Amino acid sequence: MLKKPNIVLLGAGYGGMITAARLSKKVGHDANITLVNKHDYHYQTTWLHEPAAGTLSADRTRMPIDSVLDLNKINFVKDEVVEIKREEKKVVLKQGELEYDYLVVGLGSEAETFGVPGVHEYAYCKWTVNGVREVKEHIEYQFAKYNNLSEKKDELLTFIVAGAGFTGIEFIGELSERVPELCKTYDIPQEKVKMYVIEAAPTALPGFDPELVEYAMNLLESRGVEFKINCPIKEVTEAGVILASGDEIKAETVVWATGVRGSSIIEKSGFEAMRGRIKVEPDLRAPGHEDVFVIGDCALIINEEINRPYPPTAQIAMQMAETCASNIKALMDGGSLQSFTPEIKGTVASLGGKEAIGVVGSKKLFGSTANFMKKMIDNRYLFLLGGPGLVLKRGKNPM
Amino acid sequence: MLKKPNIVLLGAGYGGMITAARLSKKVGHDANITLVNKHDYHYQTTWLHEPAAGTLSADRTRMPIDSVLDLNKINFVKDEVVEIKREEKKVVLKQGELEYDYLVVGLGSEAETFGVPGVHEYAYCKWTVNGVREVKEHIEYQFAKYNNLSEKKDELLTFIVAGAGFTGIEFIGELSERVPELCKTYDIPQEKVKMYVIEAAPTALPGFDPELVEYAMNLLESRGVEFKINCPIKEVTEAGVILASGDEIKAETVVWATGVRGSSIIEKSGFEAMRGRIKVEPDLRAPGHEDVFVIGDCALIINEEINRPYPPTAQIAMQMAETCASNIKALMDGGSLQSFTPEIKGTVASLGGKEAIGVVGSKKLFGSTANFMKKMIDNRYLFLLGGPGLVLKRGKNPM
Repeated sequence: MLKKPNIVLLGAGYGGMITAARLSKKVGHDANITLVNKHDYHYQTTWLHEPAAGTLSADRTRMPIDSVLDLNKINFVKDEVVEIKREEKKVVLKQGELEYDYLVVGLGSEAETFGVPGVHEYAYCKWTVNGVREVKEHIEYQFAKYNNLSEKKDELLTFIVAGAGFTGIEFIGELSERVPELCKTYDIPQEKVKMYVIEAAPTALPGFDPELVEYAMNLLESRGVEFKINCPIKEVTEAGVILASGDEIKAETVVWATGVRGSSIIEKSGFEAMRGRIKVEPDLRAPGHEDVFVIGDCALIINEEINRPYPPTAQIAMQMAETCASNIKALMDGGSLQSFTPEIKGTVASLGGKEAIGVVGSKKLFGSTANFMKKMIDNRYLFLLGGPGLVLKRGKNPM
Repeated sequence: MLKKPNIVLLGAGYGGMITAARLSKKVGHDANITLVNKHDYHYQTTWLHEPAAGTLSADRTRMPIDSVLDLNKINFVKDEVVEIKREEKKVVLKQGELEYDYLVVGLGSEAETFGVPGVHEYAYCKWTVNGVREVKEHIEYQFAKYNNLSEKKDELLTFIVAGAGFTGIEFIGELSERVPELCKTYDIPQEKVKMYVIEAAPTALPGFDPELVEYAMNLLESRGVEFKINCPIKEVTEAGVILASGDEIKAETVVWATGVRGSSIIEKSGFEAMRGRIKVEPDLRAPGHEDVFVIGDCALIINEEINRPYPPTAQIAMQMAETCASNIKALMDGGSLQSFTPEIKGTVASLGGKEAIGVVGSKKLFGSTANFMKKMIDNRYLFLLGGPGLVLKRGKNPM
């Protein structure tokens, strides 16, 4: 009898979870499948703007891994990845090592600072369950502190979001929706609260239809958000941010959302990469590595139509996972491998409350229709991961 | 027709509110009654340990003044008292002045630091709605921050309560009850949380029956609280506290609850006072002042049985208010004034959850019986202030 191959999956994000679920069905009896993750829970990164602003419990965005995956077919190791030793076909963990025959790298992303000093020291830039819980509590603490100061410091109530991309807009959407309630709870006149979205690029939500962008900006401005577009940040300091113009905006809260890069473990392990992202082969393998698949935010693929990389999204990560699982089975069976082609079904950005904007196919969506779609997308993911039972248990009521 | 006398009440605490309610009935048509308070709400100081620890919403401990008092009979002025000009029979406010014929000083208390350096800078010592909201959010922020640090700082999860008196014990009771839930929410092993109660005196809860004190300490210790009795604090620093022994305990959270003194406005206005408290005449007037009544935490009265001052409690403040209102009416009518004698009906300290200790008459109470009594006491206050309607609206379900 042949030795069963070791399949090691790194990271339990959108890509890793779907890959694990599919592999456990396809090859669960013919391989040793091991999933490594820092936490014993999976979380939905695309929901995190809600707990960050305090409009949803952080617990609603995560689920114990053993509640979704069949751990009779998958070994789960709670540990942190330190390095991938490609030559030795080993993964070094903080507390051990794993040997692999096939490796799936789904290590996700980190905040991209673009070299701006002070981001890691003074801005909130971890878009994780731990990270957003800190943002939420920090924000509430500023409101709670304000009335206790004999000299009122208005920078306590100044909130800066760096980056008008998807995450920045979704976060300020939630926060601006919640501010009236926070003001009421803490006896603060609403005009004291200042919210800025600062973007270096010449537009908010780059890549979105201009009509949708305008809808979003108008709506957010009506809730008191001020946009500074075409306005790079030079430095984040303890006191706030310094703009390229030299102007300073004082703020006790800076949320960094200028986009992401791939995991730093990619570079540390010697893969050729651009900002932590490996330009993968059509079959999702790392160039020169027959046994290493890369999916999700660590994988770079080019949209040939516009000759630019696809943005790293949950949607693409999940689609990659399906292809990756099929290709591993094909490798084990000696079959031929599929090429991956993303199929963008739609994109919706929520704006807080019942508001959202989006595109599905060629159709633009606004307001409650877009909001409905957003919830359907969130629920569809749960369906893909855990079937109708998981939708019932963890889904969002779209009505 | 004679000019109606001006009755000015300073402070809308337990004493001021009950005085205002009684005066509006007794002399509402024959006097101009004005109540001055910093906020447009009244709050129940004795409930504040709950919102401080996050086990009750701060809003449940306060009520709009106009929802309780009849503002057709009482003028309400939202302002801060700066000074009482006794010779001119005037009160200076931040934004104006008021002349009085009769004055009721119910300005409440401030934290007593006993000269320990650093209390105001580094400890939480404001036992007000604003103050406890800050404590609560600060505590939650420490939990939220902990897992985001690459090097875990255990002082984030170290909570020091200075003072094992009533407030300190009730607060740590709530906090220790809540810690398991906070640990669960923020993925923190419970053994990481350290709670200290540090007391300079030779016993916790001085004045309480030793059997009750032991019950309380055992219970709190079983929840992880460590008592340091007979252990004065020399200094509060940014890093924690320094004990008289020279030892340091590092903690990001120090709650100062070593007792209170009267309002500093008392001394600023030239009254003879001990730590902000005026030793009042038996009829509750300030010595040498026919027209100034002092009630609540600013009034000092001696318990002749033990030749020591009565502790400043809500119970005594409310009883003083009844006498004060009667005596003002007597002064207006030319009648004779009553002497005040406190009647201690009972004292209950809650310990979080369903736990409490107390004395009612000569009977010692423990656990759920004491907890039941505590809620009855809280509800009785609402009844005295606003009748059965207020109990229904704002009361605590004792079951």
